[in-house]
Amino acid sequence: MELKKSKNRFEDVYDYLVHRIQRGEWKRDEKLPSVRELATTLNMHRLTVLKAYQRLKAENKVYVREKSGYFVHPGNASTFEQVDRPIITSYIQRSHLSEIHEIPATYQFSKALIDPNLLPNLYLAEYVKKVLDLYPKVLGTYSNVQGDEELRETLALFFRKQDNLFIQVNELLITSGAQQAISMIAQAFIKPRDTILMEQPTYSAAIDIFQHQGATILPVEITEEGYDLEQIEEYMKTYKPRLFYCNPTFQNPTGYTIPTSQRKKLVELAEEYHCLLLEDDPFHDIYFDQKPPRSMFTYDTGGHVIYIRSYSKYIAPGLRIAVVACRDSLMKLLITAKSMQDNGSPLLNQKMFLHYFTSERLQQHLDKLRIALKIRKEIMEEELKYSGWKWVSPQGGLNLWMELPSEISGEELLAASIPDSISFVPGNICDPMKGNLNKVRLSFSFINERELIKGTKRLMEIGNTLKKPTRA
Amino acid sequence: MELKKSKNRFEDVYDYLVHRIQRGEWKRDEKLPSVRELATTLNMHRLTVLKAYQRLKAENKVYVREKSGYFVHPGNASTFEQVDRPIITSYIQRSHLSEIHEIPATYQFSKALIDPNLLPNLYLAEYVKKVLDLYPKVLGTYSNVQGDEELRETLALFFRKQDNLFIQVNELLITSGAQQAISMIAQAFIKPRDTILMEQPTYSAAIDIFQHQGATILPVEITEEGYDLEQIEEYMKTYKPRLFYCNPTFQNPTGYTIPTSQRKKLVELAEEYHCLLLEDDPFHDIYFDQKPPRSMFTYDTGGHVIYIRSYSKYIAPGLRIAVVACRDSLMKLLITAKSMQDNGSPLLNQKMFLHYFTSERLQQHLDKLRIALKIRKEIMEEELKYSGWKWVSPQGGLNLWMELPSEISGEELLAASIPDSISFVPGNICDPMKGNLNKVRLSFSFINERELIKGTKRLMEIGNTLKKPTRA
Repeated sequence: MELKKSKNRFEDVYDYLVHRIQRGEWKRDEKLPSVRELATTLNMHRLTVLKAYQRLKAENKVYVREKSGYFVHPGNASTFEQVDRPIITSYIQRSHLSEIHEIPATYQFSKALIDPNLLPNLYLAEYVKKVLDLYPKVLGTYSNVQGDEELRETLALFFRKQDNLFIQVNELLITSGAQQAISMIAQAFIKPRDTILMEQPTYSAAIDIFQHQGATILPVEITEEGYDLEQIEEYMKTYKPRLFYCNPTFQNPTGYTIPTSQRKKLVELAEEYHCLLLEDDPFHDIYFDQKPPRSMFTYDTGGHVIYIRSYSKYIAPGLRIAVVACRDSLMKLLITAKSMQDNGSPLLNQKMFLHYFTSERLQQHLDKLRIALKIRKEIMEEELKYSGWKWVSPQGGLNLWMELPSEISGEELLAASIPDSISFVPGNICDPMKGNLNKVRLSFSFINERELIKGTKRLMEIGNTLKKPTRA
Repeated sequence: MELKKSKNRFEDVYDYLVHRIQRGEWKRDEKLPSVRELATTLNMHRLTVLKAYQRLKAENKVYVREKSGYFVHPGNASTFEQVDRPIITSYIQRSHLSEIHEIPATYQFSKALIDPNLLPNLYLAEYVKKVLDLYPKVLGTYSNVQGDEELRETLALFFRKQDNLFIQVNELLITSGAQQAISMIAQAFIKPRDTILMEQPTYSAAIDIFQHQGATILPVEITEEGYDLEQIEEYMKTYKPRLFYCNPTFQNPTGYTIPTSQRKKLVELAEEYHCLLLEDDPFHDIYFDQKPPRSMFTYDTGGHVIYIRSYSKYIAPGLRIAVVACRDSLMKLLITAKSMQDNGSPLLNQKMFLHYFTSERLQQHLDKLRIALKIRKEIMEEELKYSGWKWVSPQGGLNLWMELPSEISGEELLAASIPDSISFVPGNICDPMKGNLNKVRLSFSFINERELIKGTKRLMEIGNTLKKPTRA
């Protein structure tokens, strides 16, 4: 992997070409402008343009035909041309994960969502009715950009009580889901060629978001023991990344949890090297035995951590509410970013959440949910015992991160499973470097026990058919 | 104004410096790196760097001290340094409009919002309760990314009945307010240095969004008669803009409406020059006498128009629902952009809207609302008759676009009005080129008749005090 500490002209040419190939300006196997032409158009030296083409070639984005120039590699051409192509094309590429999520599947292991049957729908529905009596004008009123003040007050109290998280009302901001928070932060802090750190593997939607912003991603391996902090320090020192997107608690997809000692040290490193820690914590309350370690945010005194805590996933996905916490100095920037993106989340949804946080029912619901999810996890693991596949049993979260035999790729297993109405996430989608080819993410949280057993059995059978040829 | 059809190296240096000055990397009156230093850091020729500095100087972003180099101009330094400065700074700049909106004011002429007392709060609150009985699992369920299918079906029928807008279910997408739609479209279609057209003046949040994406904005003047189509054609031919953001119906802030003949022609131009028309239509139903002309989108056969229609503003701002319509080929791109930004709007809010669209009450509400707003407009105009200020009486929308005597600037009038608890939007904020200095936008929709009269009287008095010195 090639990394630059400062901008280089040839990278501008490279970007120019990559964006326009993705946008479909040139189709598969179409000839690209010659080095001479492009040098004239862009007012650059020919050697600079040549260097960009050489990199594109090394990355298999273009190929060369003897004496006739550079052509778009079919594997890298815009996917839009296969469907009816719009007149004006977009820079955003369709994410592979979205495509997988759209596959209709009875055995739905791809969505890390909670079975709606495990959620307090009826109870909350009654609650909403009360909310509307309490706030008769809630539907006619905009929320302020940072989020409803009453909700933020309630959350500040709740965090203090539950998680020893001392935080002021003005240090919280409400977003429409954790993904909006990530997207908003990327927009505020990342410009093309800024370097960032990401776990390898990580949450694939976050990869898409940061890549779209043009970030140069440096992968930080996450293992059962945590991170290699020396490597992180080396990266911070050498490449001055603007942020480290991390998910240290029951990590998605691996399920690993970063130990307390590393959390403290990482906050110190962030302070020393002026790197933002973007701590995404969606599974904090989904632990099976022990509460997870305190969040990195609790060690942040200098204002280097932005903490994203999502609740809607395990309470009311239909409401789309997440909370972002950070120190006051950073908060000012986030409010501006939020005001640009949608000017504030809907007030009704915030008021509904508020009342659930002040009720006894929340803890009762979470206690039951943890047990139900633990049972599903154990059922799936029991089935997988005879698969020959390897995994580390997670202590929380919604996923098993499965290592297949080295000769089977996750994509191949998925392709073979779709006809049997099984879907899951191949490992390469979770890897910013597109590695982890023989891993898959299986979510155990969405389908019920009976289907979980049937689907897992069938998946293993399919895996075995893929293994045979190399055995023989 | 300088415009380039292709990228130039010196513009990259210029961007590099502008972003980092805005981010606060160098403070006001701080010395910037020398030409030699920066040329080494960026691996560029010194003349290229010099050219960038010269442009910054011409734009008053930096100034020169004899023999000691370039310094950050105080007027252009990051505003963050005045408050407690965060360790990691953001690229987003605080918008002046947000600051104005935060000024507490009894006479609130700045927010183009509708008085909550004119909205059907109680009726809708009852409605929500029914929605929850009808869809007991709505709180536990994610919407699909494009938006609830039942709502899109209902809207497709509604558009056909109300507006002769023939549209399929799959050509509609639901967003959390019109601003999210604009932000999402900017993210999908704009990369730094792409040229776009915008009306002059226009919706200031849209200026902020496109500027943050790095667009080069070409202003298109809007007058009572509409646009200068020859100029637009010339711009499209010469600069190949990716899109034209326009608000052709009761335009914000001017209130002008583009005539039908120009609408048709503009769609033809868009087709001919492959330019996207982003038609923002928030006031379509807020007309005072006559229905406005058909939207440009109704003339779009080739898939060149993206149409944003917002309802939440005059029905239920607390829900934050807008609809985006475009032909199928463009829709695929928008779905991807929406999935990146928040993965779908909250389902509850969509289901609530659905039921209001199928009810008789919507039309009854709109009929009453139009009358109430017309009365407020006329009351304010009656007061302003004796101001000596000039304006064109709008036939719809929520604003009066007021021309002050040439010696009074809108910013100056605002500064003088704040102590009297009056706020409004100075014209330069609505201008992508920061012109329109002696114009102001006065919204008549938010405060009641009595306050409208008192506030307007007081505002005129303040205006007169500003006029006197030059008269004498």
